[in-house]
Amino acid sequence: MQRGERTLTRETALIEALSRRFGPAPPGVVLGIGDDCAALSTNGDDYLLWTVDTLVERVHFDLSYTTLTQLGWKALAVNLSDIAAMGGEPRYALLSLGWPPERDPGLALELADGLAQAGREYGVAIIGGDTVASPGQLTVTITLTGVVPARQLLKRAGARAGDLIYVTDDLGEAAAGLEVLKRRPELDADLKAALVAAHLAPRPQLKAGRLLAREGLATAAIDTSDGVASDLYHICQASGVGAVIPAAAVPISPRVLAVAPYLQADPLKLALMGGEDYQLLFTATRDMAARLAPAFAGAGLDPPLLLGEIVAGDRVSLVTGGGEVDISGAGFDHFRLDLEPEEI
Amino acid sequence: MQRGERTLTRETALIEALSRRFGPAPPGVVLGIGDDCAALSTNGDDYLLWTVDTLVERVHFDLSYTTLTQLGWKALAVNLSDIAAMGGEPRYALLSLGWPPERDPGLALELADGLAQAGREYGVAIIGGDTVASPGQLTVTITLTGVVPARQLLKRAGARAGDLIYVTDDLGEAAAGLEVLKRRPELDADLKAALVAAHLAPRPQLKAGRLLAREGLATAAIDTSDGVASDLYHICQASGVGAVIPAAAVPISPRVLAVAPYLQADPLKLALMGGEDYQLLFTATRDMAARLAPAFAGAGLDPPLLLGEIVAGDRVSLVTGGGEVDISGAGFDHFRLDLEPEEI
Repeated sequence: MQRGERTLTRETALIEALSRRFGPAPPGVVLGIGDDCAALSTNGDDYLLWTVDTLVERVHFDLSYTTLTQLGWKALAVNLSDIAAMGGEPRYALLSLGWPPERDPGLALELADGLAQAGREYGVAIIGGDTVASPGQLTVTITLTGVVPARQLLKRAGARAGDLIYVTDDLGEAAAGLEVLKRRPELDADLKAALVAAHLAPRPQLKAGRLLAREGLATAAIDTSDGVASDLYHICQASGVGAVIPAAAVPISPRVLAVAPYLQADPLKLALMGGEDYQLLFTATRDMAARLAPAFAGAGLDPPLLLGEIVAGDRVSLVTGGGEVDISGAGFDHFRLDLEPEEI
Repeated sequence: MQRGERTLTRETALIEALSRRFGPAPPGVVLGIGDDCAALSTNGDDYLLWTVDTLVERVHFDLSYTTLTQLGWKALAVNLSDIAAMGGEPRYALLSLGWPPERDPGLALELADGLAQAGREYGVAIIGGDTVASPGQLTVTITLTGVVPARQLLKRAGARAGDLIYVTDDLGEAAAGLEVLKRRPELDADLKAALVAAHLAPRPQLKAGRLLAREGLATAAIDTSDGVASDLYHICQASGVGAVIPAAAVPISPRVLAVAPYLQADPLKLALMGGEDYQLLFTATRDMAARLAPAFAGAGLDPPLLLGEIVAGDRVSLVTGGGEVDISGAGFDHFRLDLEPEEI
């Protein structure tokens, strides 16, 4: 799921309505509509994971600031992030490319280069697909499979009151990077490059996802694609719980804090509502939490960062100096209505 | 693969170039880029089949003549046809829906109804997917899995000189139906309805595909999506052979012959270059050919129709009263250059 979905009115309600039309999933479907991937039981001990994501020109990307090679990388990366959120290992991808007929089809090879780079980096083979004319805009649809041992599957459902909430890295760089690309502020070159890279070339957290799954260190997980407030709300809805995030404790990237004044942006908003960081957001019992830092260190990964706590209820609350604010499922627009900057 | 692809210049060359960028397929990939589906080996005796197809508004459909429910049916049907061409049984589908943000998202449920109808008809569960904003046009991407016993897999490669070429039904109705929708000639209502249905609601030949696979009655197979001349050329390329079609023997649908004068269209062109019939085009040895009619009758299917013969070489030739014409890979435009109506 990507950021541009927000422009589709009431997308969650639509997905639920679609799901009702399609009817109940048959036996063999462990997870269907409503998680990052579908999960299917197979003959063996593994589940087959399966996901699809489409990137649409001028909704998810703009060729005035991304190269086709970067776009190819990102198209695979956002799907890989869904596999990571289930604790899986990716296997095979198919590409469905919608190419505007007036553009040179040879340029599609640049996009293929980016896909192939990400495939090599993360051990995915791109084995087929189709190409269609797409007069209105370039579209890149990737469908990806992966595997996960059945007992290790990570889901959105499973968080319980008292669990702690973690993210695999500090937040907001991808959203800040997008603003940098759009507004082109005068910035330190290294800072600019790092933020832009966070937006254009996200690194799916497959290693962290496998670690959490293999070691049993998470009760629920999702990737941070829509924005943490929205992604956390998905976990809460699937798990039947609420969540509390202390505003002062949100792990905002130092780069986001540094660039925010140049963007006239609220760093907390960028961190919680910006989306597209493609980190993992997960919940863990206190016992699991105590094992996180050594397990991550043992795998050569930075320790995950504490974001808040799961509570009884059905809302995601941000605790500020002025009290609690409901940010359940808040995309940027919704947030703007509920919480003006001065209230934080 | 659908008809609109023709507008993408040199699509086959593009797919080959993309394939080179993606590198060789790893072990476990039985068939990759270049057949109707990818085929993957699994732990068991079956191969996993996997395909993706995108329908793009104003390229593959026009909402001025298709309902959203019909579109939903067709989006699944064209993918099911790819599974049929491999001899497989379909299993699960994911939907990636690109919806123009200015349109009522509630209408997407009509599309879901058509998908669900086709799913019930052919035993496919739609188990997930994503929705994205698509400002330029409505796009419907379906990715579908299926299974086929490993020894029964039908491929494009495998035709040999001397094999006979068959199709599972007479040809041209879908193409004629599209012309009827575009030109709205005054026609008998039943004739019009049958042709329009052939275009808007194709019926994938899953039963015939399974029969051919199970009984070992085909040396190569493909579905007729691009048009028979083009689809047969794909078989020839994959198999390293040529083909000869006697023009007088082409099984043109009687409805196409009836409507052709009203459309000022050449029925032979509609049959060979029209595309989108979603029948199976296959080759069979003489021994297999002798068993086709009883096997099809036993399965409650009409017998397949003879189209021509595989020969040595690398071209698809149409034999007319005036001699042989090379129609290798001919889409409609190419055909027009090579063969004016008066030459037939």
